[in-house]
Amino acid sequence: MDLNLIKEIAVTSPEKIVMLVLDGLGGLPDPRTGKTELETARIPHLDAIAAQGICGLADPIAPGITPGSGPGHLALFGYDPIANLIGRGALEAVGIDVALGPDDVAARGNFCTIDAKGIITERRAGRISTEKCAELCKLLNGIKVNGVAIKIYPVREHRFVAVFHGKKLYTELTESDPSQTGVAPLVIKAENTAAKKTADIVNDFIAKAKAALAKHHPANMILLRGFAKKPQLPTMQEIYKLNPLAIAIYPMYRGLARLVGMQVAATGTALEDEFKTLKENYAQYDFFFLHVKWTDTAGEDGDFARKVKVLEQIDAALPALTGLKPDVLVVTGDHSTPAVYGGHTWHPVPVVISGKYCRTDRVKEFSEAAFIMGGLGRIKATDIMPLALANARKLTKFGA
Amino acid sequence: MDLNLIKEIAVTSPEKIVMLVLDGLGGLPDPRTGKTELETARIPHLDAIAAQGICGLADPIAPGITPGSGPGHLALFGYDPIANLIGRGALEAVGIDVALGPDDVAARGNFCTIDAKGIITERRAGRISTEKCAELCKLLNGIKVNGVAIKIYPVREHRFVAVFHGKKLYTELTESDPSQTGVAPLVIKAENTAAKKTADIVNDFIAKAKAALAKHHPANMILLRGFAKKPQLPTMQEIYKLNPLAIAIYPMYRGLARLVGMQVAATGTALEDEFKTLKENYAQYDFFFLHVKWTDTAGEDGDFARKVKVLEQIDAALPALTGLKPDVLVVTGDHSTPAVYGGHTWHPVPVVISGKYCRTDRVKEFSEAAFIMGGLGRIKATDIMPLALANARKLTKFGA
Repeated sequence: MDLNLIKEIAVTSPEKIVMLVLDGLGGLPDPRTGKTELETARIPHLDAIAAQGICGLADPIAPGITPGSGPGHLALFGYDPIANLIGRGALEAVGIDVALGPDDVAARGNFCTIDAKGIITERRAGRISTEKCAELCKLLNGIKVNGVAIKIYPVREHRFVAVFHGKKLYTELTESDPSQTGVAPLVIKAENTAAKKTADIVNDFIAKAKAALAKHHPANMILLRGFAKKPQLPTMQEIYKLNPLAIAIYPMYRGLARLVGMQVAATGTALEDEFKTLKENYAQYDFFFLHVKWTDTAGEDGDFARKVKVLEQIDAALPALTGLKPDVLVVTGDHSTPAVYGGHTWHPVPVVISGKYCRTDRVKEFSEAAFIMGGLGRIKATDIMPLALANARKLTKFGA
Repeated sequence: MDLNLIKEIAVTSPEKIVMLVLDGLGGLPDPRTGKTELETARIPHLDAIAAQGICGLADPIAPGITPGSGPGHLALFGYDPIANLIGRGALEAVGIDVALGPDDVAARGNFCTIDAKGIITERRAGRISTEKCAELCKLLNGIKVNGVAIKIYPVREHRFVAVFHGKKLYTELTESDPSQTGVAPLVIKAENTAAKKTADIVNDFIAKAKAALAKHHPANMILLRGFAKKPQLPTMQEIYKLNPLAIAIYPMYRGLARLVGMQVAATGTALEDEFKTLKENYAQYDFFFLHVKWTDTAGEDGDFARKVKVLEQIDAALPALTGLKPDVLVVTGDHSTPAVYGGHTWHPVPVVISGKYCRTDRVKEFSEAAFIMGGLGRIKATDIMPLALANARKLTKFGA
């Protein structure tokens, strides 16, 4: 849906919307039982929400396309995930809670090992510890090149984020990581004339980093790739006239929420903490994005039984949420992560929208197969926000 | 789906995809029984594929739009059938296995009858025999105008294809066929300045043809229309990284497959030959387009009972295909051809995708009505290729 059209018809209303995102929600049948994780789990509260609400299956991007977490969430927030693809460096920064300014350029970095001739012998510096990484990042932090300050943030093991703070920086740059050993790191080149100066700055920085790391074998060199700026997205306040709050334990999802203008709540490290944070902030906002990660983690680990258990734990905790009686409740995921596949997949994601005006269907069971018969049918994930807003009386008539 | 995006995420994998296209597959109920051809036929193997796979209905172009064979197949191959419309002349050339060079202009031709004053008295020259047509085409073949060689290929009865081989030829030309008798053939005009020279060449050719045919009443003149070049499509190798093989008995479908870069296998004239060709070539390719024509022919002839019988014959032969255990099997059609309608229609086409990761639904029967409840829902035919590729692990994640 065209966000300019939504912006024209969006109005404020007292109604509150809660969007509960169970990361990697959709599954596939266990070949031994023929049942998916959702079909296996005992989830009476989710079944009740399905029975009260209108159900369907949502394609995060398009049929057959497997989304990363970035596009998956942008689609749930109503933003075209293809037109607004978040560059790798920017997403990595978002993922560790590093706020990027509009002119900053972020890159993903690796510490690596080079020999005396400058040839890469190990692309991950033997996977140094996260502590060692943090220590080396400090060493590189604050190098300045031509008035551009470079900040270095550790991620995990050999990985870090480099942020170039300056004006007139461009992202049209080749990468220094040759993706193989036995060769020297590549010189970064500009892909257009405007980026020429940025390429020089990045190459100068790499030279200075190399000098600073000379005595830190095996982490005696760096590789940079995925140069990107933060996408310039209109905020949810601007488009939807919402006052939105994000509740998420993992920094990636807090960062994605910030990209679309959400406030981000401090919360704990357990599901109960997230629901408690929701309750505490319930009066102050009219849209809540509540992210639960562990469904995805279990799916990624290929642990069918754990994904089932996580679903049952979420279900058991749900009354803390439904007790708030949100005017509109959306339960969905950003993509499917079937345990039998062990990773994100292209399969459409179950979605239910519950509320006074949802026009319920005949679905009584929260599962992939049951939702095929749902009243929403097969929709695009970007349709969910307009539907949620409409159900909360936040969209007026289009045309007279 | 944007093919540039697909191209970016496509990877090779060992998995094999078989796309079985039953031409004109969808039907309409016989008013006497209330059952469609699929509902009437005894098709246990197709029912089993539906039970194992995920089912749905696909719109070749859009709801309400009846496709020709060209757009119907391009959509199945994943190409936007509207943006890549194949011009009439080019499709006619494709349909008789004539390969067009990138600069060639093809036109559909008719032999017709004119009187002494040059007025058309019969637009089809009394439907001369195909043999006579071939003989006259020889007479016209090889005429040269201004360095442009014109080749003439017989089609059937009074119909032929004219191919203009040269450089800087354009297709923006009016037609010489006035679509009525009692008037003279029209002079071909250029629709823009660039095409002026091409129009002169075509008019000169027509004058020479007229002279050559003067003594061949009733086929003493020609009419030309549908000037077109071959569409410049990226190949399936380029976009999907596939190594695709087409198995089709009729030249039109071999030609369509060639347009998207498929290799074309030599095969016999019976369904069993096609399945045998599939088996013989199974090791060498990773995508197989297998086209079966007779479902459409029976539908076009309005022969409900024959379409039912053809479906049963296909079903009986299917174990030769399923015995190869393709990793992903797609069964669908390029459009519906209901016998009670007697021609192509706009109705969405049954589609089933079967494979290890297809996330099966609760459909047990291969029919239009049963597929409404399928897990694919109602999709666009252009979604089928991305879904088949994803199921064969040939598409990586979009975005991080």
